Amino acid sequence: MARNAIGWAAHDQSGILSPFKFSRRATGEQDVTFKVLYCGICHSDLHYVKNEWGHSTYPAVPGHEIVGIVTEVGSKVQNFKVGDKVGVGCMVGSCHSCSNCSANLQNYCPKMILTYGSTYHDGTPTYGGYSDVMVVDEHFAVRIPESIPLDSAAPLLCAGITVYSPLKYYGLGKPGMHVGVNGLGGLGHVAVKFAKAFGAKVTVISTSPNKKDEAISRLGADSFLVSRDPDQMQAAISTMDGIIDTVSAFHPLVPLLSLLKSSGTLVMVGAPEKPLELPIFPLLMGRKMVGGSCIGGMKETQEMIDFAAKHGVKAEIEVIPIDYVNNAMDRMLKSDVRYRFVIDIGNTLKAD
Amino acid sequence: MARNAIGWAAHDQSGILSPFKFSRRATGEQDVTFKVLYCGICHSDLHYVKNEWGHSTYPAVPGHEIVGIVTEVGSKVQNFKVGDKVGVGCMVGSCHSCSNCSANLQNYCPKMILTYGSTYHDGTPTYGGYSDVMVVDEHFAVRIPESIPLDSAAPLLCAGITVYSPLKYYGLGKPGMHVGVNGLGGLGHVAVKFAKAFGAKVTVISTSPNKKDEAISRLGADSFLVSRDPDQMQAAISTMDGIIDTVSAFHPLVPLLSLLKSSGTLVMVGAPEKPLELPIFPLLMGRKMVGGSCIGGMKETQEMIDFAAKHGVKAEIEVIPIDYVNNAMDRMLKSDVRYRFVIDIGNTLKAD
Repeated sequence: MARNAIGWAAHDQSGILSPFKFSRRATGEQDVTFKVLYCGICHSDLHYVKNEWGHSTYPAVPGHEIVGIVTEVGSKVQNFKVGDKVGVGCMVGSCHSCSNCSANLQNYCPKMILTYGSTYHDGTPTYGGYSDVMVVDEHFAVRIPESIPLDSAAPLLCAGITVYSPLKYYGLGKPGMHVGVNGLGGLGHVAVKFAKAFGAKVTVISTSPNKKDEAISRLGADSFLVSRDPDQMQAAISTMDGIIDTVSAFHPLVPLLSLLKSSGTLVMVGAPEKPLELPIFPLLMGRKMVGGSCIGGMKETQEMIDFAAKHGVKAEIEVIPIDYVNNAMDRMLKSDVRYRFVIDIGNTLKAD
Repeated sequence: MARNAIGWAAHDQSGILSPFKFSRRATGEQDVTFKVLYCGICHSDLHYVKNEWGHSTYPAVPGHEIVGIVTEVGSKVQNFKVGDKVGVGCMVGSCHSCSNCSANLQNYCPKMILTYGSTYHDGTPTYGGYSDVMVVDEHFAVRIPESIPLDSAAPLLCAGITVYSPLKYYGLGKPGMHVGVNGLGGLGHVAVKFAKAFGAKVTVISTSPNKKDEAISRLGADSFLVSRDPDQMQAAISTMDGIIDTVSAFHPLVPLLSLLKSSGTLVMVGAPEKPLELPIFPLLMGRKMVGGSCIGGMKETQEMIDFAAKHGVKAEIEVIPIDYVNNAMDRMLKSDVRYRFVIDIGNTLKAD
């Protein structure tokens, strides 16, 4: 029998969120049901509630950086029990049979089901973590280690894995590498921390000189490059093995490509709406690559959160009550957050 | 003492070539001097003589697919002797001390000296293979195996290594891979042959349906995709591990990216003058990459020509006399050649 749930939803492309009552499916054999305690606010949430990618459906309950405590498990659940700390990221289902699923890359399964805004196997719409309860197939839940605070763990489930996976895949997450991180927001700040934890040298690339002190003293970056300063950029030419580009606004790629050594990779993890301009000569002349990456598979997501716990990597957050969520969205749009809002669902989202 | 040489040069950006007398340096200690027998015509030659990249100097003697017979060697030359068959490709010098040179990637050395249009270590301009004699540092010469005809070996020194190197570097040159080759010209036709020789499945992607029979029966491709046919393109979505994109005209990347499997790579080896449009979503959604590659290092160039000899890979050529070179340039511009012009220098370029 379905269970009542409450959340905050957008009802149209104004994107304004308000309280919303809906239902979740009953706990199935392979499902884990959990009380949501915290949920991060990702820039994708804002894109989605405002229908900026053109495929939103309403009502829309966003949220895919979700942590909580297990309250019920299905009869066939193997990895979780009541009371466990659990997390859910950007996806809640996949086909389990394609080559990507077989390779633990559910994130690239053509039938991957997003945590919100998709249709679940049973035909119901998926609703995200700006809500009091989640029901999820255990294959799409990760265990949150004891040593990592739940609130600052939440953003790792999207922002964390989004940068962790390409650091590993593109060979940048290891000592001896010099990694650039373009853009110092929700994604960028955890990219700095993970790259440092992997032992790499990290340079933050930013349009904002006033982020330098924080990048170095608070986040641990080795150096800071103001992308609008031609002298600084010139001095850094051909010095980086790879760059994690977290900027989702339209921006030129040539200055970034010029920072790469031969055979270096520019990894796009932000999602600009419009195509960027790709000059081909800089790619040819140094055998450079522009690659993409999108979150990570479930096995790697568990690995990421375990790695984060072991190395003390956590998101820098500002915890807010649910009724501040619309203000938070406005502030995020102005980059007025260091570096991620996390909604305290457990203490502030109550049934009327 | 410098030696007299004759060649054909362009004198301005009309690009029209005519006989030209000049001099080559005397054979230095590490130099190999050889009588040029054949020289391929690369599309770059045309770009260069017409100053389409904006950095040409005149007089310009093009040609970087050069084969001949050694006539003199310097006192410290170790790998060649008089009478050897020898080849020179796109470069004749590099710094020998940077990280790229140390890794046998002289082609990515920032001080790499091009076979024509560069300035040599001694301050003289470099002149290419549309000439009767070459003098080259032995480090930039390759040995042409006995079993490969000299005329059809010539284009391998640029076109061949240009596709061989990325097939290997991007992991496409092996059995089990499905490789797309976009564009069936000078580069594309040897890409098909090398990819087949490596054991890959090869699909040619072309705007010209009338190239299908030749692609399959003459060049050995497994299948043929007309890029303007939406049904054919739709049916081939997500089927390729990588694509070697040889097209140097402006063209959309999205249809090519859609042909790639997850984690597939689109490798640019053609050099469009203007930036292409790069949509980011398709990169993210399948962890796809757009990479570049530019010829190959000297060690790999020797490996390539040895591999070609062993596996019977040779360019399909139309041999022409030197005084046909301007007509050949015109025809190449119209893609009216299958697939590479090679100038019979030895028999047709004579001092007056």
